[in-house]
Amino acid sequence: MSVYVVGHKSPDTDSVTSAIAYAELKKAMGVDAVAVMQGELNPEATMVLEKFGFAAPEIMTDGAGKKLILVDHSDIAQAPDNLDKAEIIEIVDHHKIGDITTSNPIFFCAQPVGCTGTVLKQLFDINDVAIPKNIAGIMLAAILSDTVLFKSPTTTDADKKACDALAKIAGVDDMEALAMEMFKAKSAVEGVPMRDLIFRDYKDFDMNGNKVGCGQLELVDISLVADMRDDLYKELQKVKSEGRHTVLLMLTDIMKEGTDLMVVSDDPSYVEKAYNVKVDGPTVWVDGMMSRKKQTVPPLQKAFGG
Amino acid sequence: MSVYVVGHKSPDTDSVTSAIAYAELKKAMGVDAVAVMQGELNPEATMVLEKFGFAAPEIMTDGAGKKLILVDHSDIAQAPDNLDKAEIIEIVDHHKIGDITTSNPIFFCAQPVGCTGTVLKQLFDINDVAIPKNIAGIMLAAILSDTVLFKSPTTTDADKKACDALAKIAGVDDMEALAMEMFKAKSAVEGVPMRDLIFRDYKDFDMNGNKVGCGQLELVDISLVADMRDDLYKELQKVKSEGRHTVLLMLTDIMKEGTDLMVVSDDPSYVEKAYNVKVDGPTVWVDGMMSRKKQTVPPLQKAFGG
Repeated sequence: MSVYVVGHKSPDTDSVTSAIAYAELKKAMGVDAVAVMQGELNPEATMVLEKFGFAAPEIMTDGAGKKLILVDHSDIAQAPDNLDKAEIIEIVDHHKIGDITTSNPIFFCAQPVGCTGTVLKQLFDINDVAIPKNIAGIMLAAILSDTVLFKSPTTTDADKKACDALAKIAGVDDMEALAMEMFKAKSAVEGVPMRDLIFRDYKDFDMNGNKVGCGQLELVDISLVADMRDDLYKELQKVKSEGRHTVLLMLTDIMKEGTDLMVVSDDPSYVEKAYNVKVDGPTVWVDGMMSRKKQTVPPLQKAFGG
Repeated sequence: MSVYVVGHKSPDTDSVTSAIAYAELKKAMGVDAVAVMQGELNPEATMVLEKFGFAAPEIMTDGAGKKLILVDHSDIAQAPDNLDKAEIIEIVDHHKIGDITTSNPIFFCAQPVGCTGTVLKQLFDINDVAIPKNIAGIMLAAILSDTVLFKSPTTTDADKKACDALAKIAGVDDMEALAMEMFKAKSAVEGVPMRDLIFRDYKDFDMNGNKVGCGQLELVDISLVADMRDDLYKELQKVKSEGRHTVLLMLTDIMKEGTDLMVVSDDPSYVEKAYNVKVDGPTVWVDGMMSRKKQTVPPLQKAFGG
């Protein structure tokens, strides 16, 4: 019986490449592992897989009756559907510890680093398995993406060290050029439906019993979405109306290192309290906000009281 | 600010020695780490610490306002009180994944092996820190205890490999002799109050909203408790009456490799379903049952429906 290695919903580069890379490691260790993903590739991940010669993994959204290895998440809301009917056999992650529990002991490896790719680099090393050249390439790309070329406050020395080693294996001489190529691909917004932009990199959270969603668009220049703000806001109101207390859309300017935060909420005071801002329009600029995981979610979770 | 390394409630040899050993590793890595425990030493742990020259760690039951590293558990019910007012900074475990969540990314390392000591052996190695001789001794003792000298079905090759390496470092020539010394200490029941015997190695679980407790006495010969059965049963009924749906006491015969299971329950049919037995007296013999973690808890959790 195959073991499916799968990242979170609304897959990003790390979720997709980590599924591919970890399936490769497990195969080298004798496990019949298959990388899958829970949704379509985003433009950045598409570019990365093409560049290093990988086909897109198959899409799998239902975990029922399957053996699963979860990468890049440990929350029920971000895992495949029917998780209670699946058998989770491993979790590898770099986020806060989520609400997934198991009825048997399993391998669970989470580290407070910038990217699952960094954890995987260590797992290859610990298990004494050489990283294939193209696999090193996608792992490198994932770390550069998640750490926004080491600008994100989630970046650790372990991430930089992993990138140095992976770049050598992958034969990538210029990490910055690779990162810029990804950022440009990621910034592609022209002609994309509003809903797809919101859900391109999107997660739902349970905050003290309230469903709270947060999407993020990382842009090399925030003016790229200047013409779309009204339409984005209208669509975000729709997403909010689908049973959520609050929905945020982070319009993150990679170069200016901050986020124009679009807010639709039953009670914006939670957002105001979380980031010490005043919400009096569709968006509010939060200087220095780059990381949903480290800067957007924890203060909001705290404001909601857990 | 110190970081407190702490095992589960009703500490056993693994919980106490893992706190000491991991605090030692963290100190070697520059962290001001202090090993503590949540209750008195049991007879086996007392013998192990004495043999390898360690004082008993201080008792700490309240986590409020403290930085914590949890070892040998990942369940809220087994962690220090006021966990919501503590900051959990790491978890190292070998049990099923529990219900602890965090609001920030942390280091969480669980492995499906027989003992936390085995995971710690790997963490020393990965971090390139030499294991002091006496620390190797208590880690070895913990693995021999948790795996019942490799007889428990929880035993893995990793446990055996770790023991071989640790025995060399600790200068222990005869692992079996060390194990028998521990088992004899563990089997000491004479003159011990019934309540203390039940809680010597005891855990509460949440099974689909029901509080279910399970204690275990590992005995070199089950006849050691022959005279105490009635008194143990009466005391177990008291424990049950303190807000629990079901309480089990495993009277495990290490040599016969099975457990006489004492059952007090609002509805014994869950127990009957879980182990495919008929409960028509205070105890029922379950052949081959050695491990609470692997053989007693998962089937019961399943019988309760989660």
